[in-house]
Amino acid sequence: MISTTVILQLICPDRPGLVSELSGWVASNRGNIRHADHHTDSDAGLFLSRIEWDLDEFGLEREAIFQEIQELADRLDGKAQVNFSDERPRVAIFVSKQSHCLLDLLWRVQSKELPMDVPLIIANHAELEPLCLEFGVAYKFIPMSVDNKPAAEKNILELLSEYQIDLAVLAKFMQVLSSDFLEKFPNIINIHHSSLPAFKGAQPYHRAWERGVKLIGATAHYVTKDLDDGPIIEQTIAHVSHRDEVEDLIRKGRDTERIALARALRLHLRRQVMVYRGRTAVFQ
Amino acid sequence: MISTTVILQLICPDRPGLVSELSGWVASNRGNIRHADHHTDSDAGLFLSRIEWDLDEFGLEREAIFQEIQELADRLDGKAQVNFSDERPRVAIFVSKQSHCLLDLLWRVQSKELPMDVPLIIANHAELEPLCLEFGVAYKFIPMSVDNKPAAEKNILELLSEYQIDLAVLAKFMQVLSSDFLEKFPNIINIHHSSLPAFKGAQPYHRAWERGVKLIGATAHYVTKDLDDGPIIEQTIAHVSHRDEVEDLIRKGRDTERIALARALRLHLRRQVMVYRGRTAVFQ
Amino acid sequence: MISTTVILQLICPDRPGLVSELSGWVASNRGNIRHADHHTDSDAGLFLSRIEWDLDEFGLEREAIFQEIQELADRLDGKAQVNFSDERPRVAIFVSKQSHCLLDLLWRVQSKELPMDVPLIIANHAELEPLCLEFGVAYKFIPMSVDNKPAAEKNILELLSEYQIDLAVLAKFMQVLSSDFLEKFPNIINIHHSSLPAFKGAQPYHRAWERGVKLIGATAHYVTKDLDDGPIIEQTIAHVSHRDEVEDLIRKGRDTERIALARALRLHLRRQVMVYRGRTAVFQ
Amino acid sequence: MISTTVILQLICPDRPGLVSELSGWVASNRGNIRHADHHTDSDAGLFLSRIEWDLDEFGLEREAIFQEIQELADRLDGKAQVNFSDERPRVAIFVSKQSHCLLDLLWRVQSKELPMDVPLIIANHAELEPLCLEFGVAYKFIPMSVDNKPAAEKNILELLSEYQIDLAVLAKFMQVLSSDFLEKFPNIINIHHSSLPAFKGAQPYHRAWERGVKLIGATAHYVTKDLDDGPIIEQTIAHVSHRDEVEDLIRKGRDTERIALARALRLHLRRQVMVYRGRTAVFQ
Repeated sequence: MISTTVILQLICPDRPGLVSELSGWVASNRGNIRHADHHTDSDAGLFLSRIEWDLDEFGLEREAIFQEIQELADRLDGKAQVNFSDERPRVAIFVSKQSHCLLDLLWRVQSKELPMDVPLIIANHAELEPLCLEFGVAYKFIPMSVDNKPAAEKNILELLSEYQIDLAVLAKFMQVLSSDFLEKFPNIINIHHSSLPAFKGAQPYHRAWERGVKLIGATAHYVTKDLDDGPIIEQTIAHVSHRDEVEDLIRKGRDTERIALARALRLHLRRQVMVYRGRTAVFQ
Repeated sequence: MISTTVILQLICPDRPGLVSELSGWVASNRGNIRHADHHTDSDAGLFLSRIEWDLDEFGLEREAIFQEIQELADRLDGKAQVNFSDERPRVAIFVSKQSHCLLDLLWRVQSKELPMDVPLIIANHAELEPLCLEFGVAYKFIPMSVDNKPAAEKNILELLSEYQIDLAVLAKFMQVLSSDFLEKFPNIINIHHSSLPAFKGAQPYHRAWERGVKLIGATAHYVTKDLDDGPIIEQTIAHVSHRDEVEDLIRKGRDTERIALARALRLHLRRQVMVYRGRTAVFQ
Repeated sequence: MISTTVILQLICPDRPGLVSELSGWVASNRGNIRHADHHTDSDAGLFLSRIEWDLDEFGLEREAIFQEIQELADRLDGKAQVNFSDERPRVAIFVSKQSHCLLDLLWRVQSKELPMDVPLIIANHAELEPLCLEFGVAYKFIPMSVDNKPAAEKNILELLSEYQIDLAVLAKFMQVLSSDFLEKFPNIINIHHSSLPAFKGAQPYHRAWERGVKLIGATAHYVTKDLDDGPIIEQTIAHVSHRDEVEDLIRKGRDTERIALARALRLHLRRQVMVYRGRTAVFQ
Repeated sequence: MISTTVILQLICPDRPGLVSELSGWVASNRGNIRHADHHTDSDAGLFLSRIEWDLDEFGLEREAIFQEIQELADRLDGKAQVNFSDERPRVAIFVSKQSHCLLDLLWRVQSKELPMDVPLIIANHAELEPLCLEFGVAYKFIPMSVDNKPAAEKNILELLSEYQIDLAVLAKFMQVLSSDFLEKFPNIINIHHSSLPAFKGAQPYHRAWERGVKLIGATAHYVTKDLDDGPIIEQTIAHVSHRDEVEDLIRKGRDTERIALARALRLHLRRQVMVYRGRTAVFQ
């Protein structure tokens, strides 16, 4: 029913005529543009573009599109990525003991809010296995500690490969992945339970309570080697008062976490997020 | 320092190639596109586009741009509007007794948040004259009642003409303008003190308090003949509780009103708002 | 671990000395007050009070508390309600085809956010049975139409009685219950998918899209005979733009609905909501 | 018209019977309680109470109230503060070059939102003098630099004394006051342009832009010797995107700053804020 679209994300040095060149190429192949959004980072002299058009009636097949876009990007001295709206990335969700983000994501997949498949759950604890089995997802319980971290990460990397995983989502995983791991599998989204850059690191709600803040937040971001410093995709907040104990912050925080993570993931899956200079451009 | 841009807003029946045609025309005249944003209303089969490019180095003078864009729009069976970022529309602010929106707008003009000139205030009451004189703005006190409405409106229309006013802003004017007036001067933005369509008409805060709502709001919209039914530009809200009396709703409402009105006006002045089918497309 | 508290909610004509009288009675029985919150509706000359104290060490047993509070309320010409924090009301959730509110509530019960038991689901459609069975809840599929409404309602009332239900929650039930039903079972919370009083009745998201609003909302309220006019407990909102189709409003709305409903239910279950004059006082 | 109220704020070690003791004392003097709000910090074993009652008909004069409350506080091993709603604290506003918070506060005083008098403006720059003169406020231009700081602070302290100032508000003062100054005049509220504890110190908007956050904020707090670490009264936020340049963050931030500062100041002036353990309890 819903027709497939081609989504081009391109970043290159800015110069006049780029929008025309890109849309002209689409038009010359009889593409009907559904969305076109561009951003110029004048500070860095960069041009970012996201164009989405119908694949039906388009004059090129998928393979040919990849090829021509690659030539286009080379000519513009830029980088391009092409996706199709009917792709369903294979996503592994990493969890610990808390179920709220996991259940929320599985429900959103089921109700077609998130165009992805979740064939694999990686878990640092055993608690959430029943929930995952209900949803028919493989649950791999891999305890991770300071001692066995390299072995555990090796184990996980093998599973990611075996299950042909495209993207990992840390849904309250509560563990830090090593630089080595990230080099081998860099495509990871995390939810951190604070308004980054406030309260980086462990126990942000406890520290937020100590500080007496009136707002708590959650931040969904891409994972990089610098802990909690990756490009931010989405942030949400909730109001708190002196009446709220740490447990109340944790409870209220769960809602902000799952909303921020779900929104970020949807934006990512619909290819609305471009990463550059340690930041993101989010084309809404 | 900041270079002038050309802003094109175009609406026409949707068909493939429109983005390319528009951006191609800009490129063929050596225009460097700063922003390009498009929207397709598939329901109505309409294409809306807003493109902004640098006037410097552009191959056409202002007059020629108007002319060529008109031809383009005709060819596409659409309607186009061209503006330049260095225009400063002449705005009349209509007030009654309340100062908060008026003062807020005058301050934002002064601090360069709103690119407009305010040569004229139309007032239904005498109270705000001193404030306006401080800002060096002509203050015309024109009492309006059921009896003298046609005469008062005639008077106002003459002033709008005399002061060469482009846009009127009803900043808590508390009076309904006649259909006749709107035909003669249709370019008007109003701030209504409720989350439209809730609480249309008079005394929305009193009725919101009666109803026991937990959120109050403000709506900035273009004025049409159907009271409070015009195209919505911006809406803001504030939380209230059972502890808030009507006066508290009014007080909290003032902040939502001035924020909604200021945002809407800025969007309008930067030509980010397109009206169609009784609604707005707001290109952020 | 967590000690039980007594929660008194009292409403009576206002006069000096009421706080002292109430807290004095608690103190005279050696009660340690945890929370005390009062509100005076000067317009109506009413005093509302919510006092919560530890049951441990308190000088009266539960039965005696009920009795003495009843005498106190009579003396003050008011109405009182006493609850204990260890009560777990038996709640029936009414659903149609949409799962988001139902799943959300069941998860919050499981994770101890909502102190209630859910022994019964009343469903107008068959779709959600598997989900309910996973959570071990009885699922009663009772199709309701114009023709069979009286019979269906009779059926439901019998089930509510059989399962000893204290409270019904309409979690996107999409059916209007008759006045007769409400007289027999008046304790009902509903989630309506608009910022009431805007868009009362059917298809609020379609009408919100038609109107071109920039904010959509959800309203959790007690059900009364006048459709969508019951006392409001909680309201939430989400931002929308011209890019959002009706389906996007529905999708975004789901998050505001489940948050508003969950918050309202938690407030209700913790006895933080008092209804009076068609409105609520919510003691946070 | 509006009758005067007595406002008691008390903090003492928690034990049963405190609410009764306080409200009993009010009742024994025929006081009609308008608001009573309490908070128990179980972690610290502290009881905080705010009670407000009518002065009319009350059995004690102001002097006697102070005296009896002092005795009561001593007996409870606590600290008490008594204020009357007809007090109008004398407030000095400290400014630099930016006018938005200053103008906002002066307007709110004029429109009776803030029950205070502003007889004095302390300015680090000359720019805002005309604005202050319009409002009839003394403007003292005291340039402050590394070299002359002790002398400048001495000068300011003399002015605060001369003008009998009760409270200082740093409305974008952009200068750090010395520990010595704070010891001599500790009653100060500041507005910081970030969601503390994120982006403490200088140029928070520039650093927020660098980091690529999706939310910016403002924090109104009491000033203590540790820069930007004082007890937080109110926090507000605004959404930003990749399209926003630093100047846009600054512009959007102005609205969050003035709202946060105005709310915090109103809460402070109505004696709704109690400071303890480096945090605030805000009785709404």
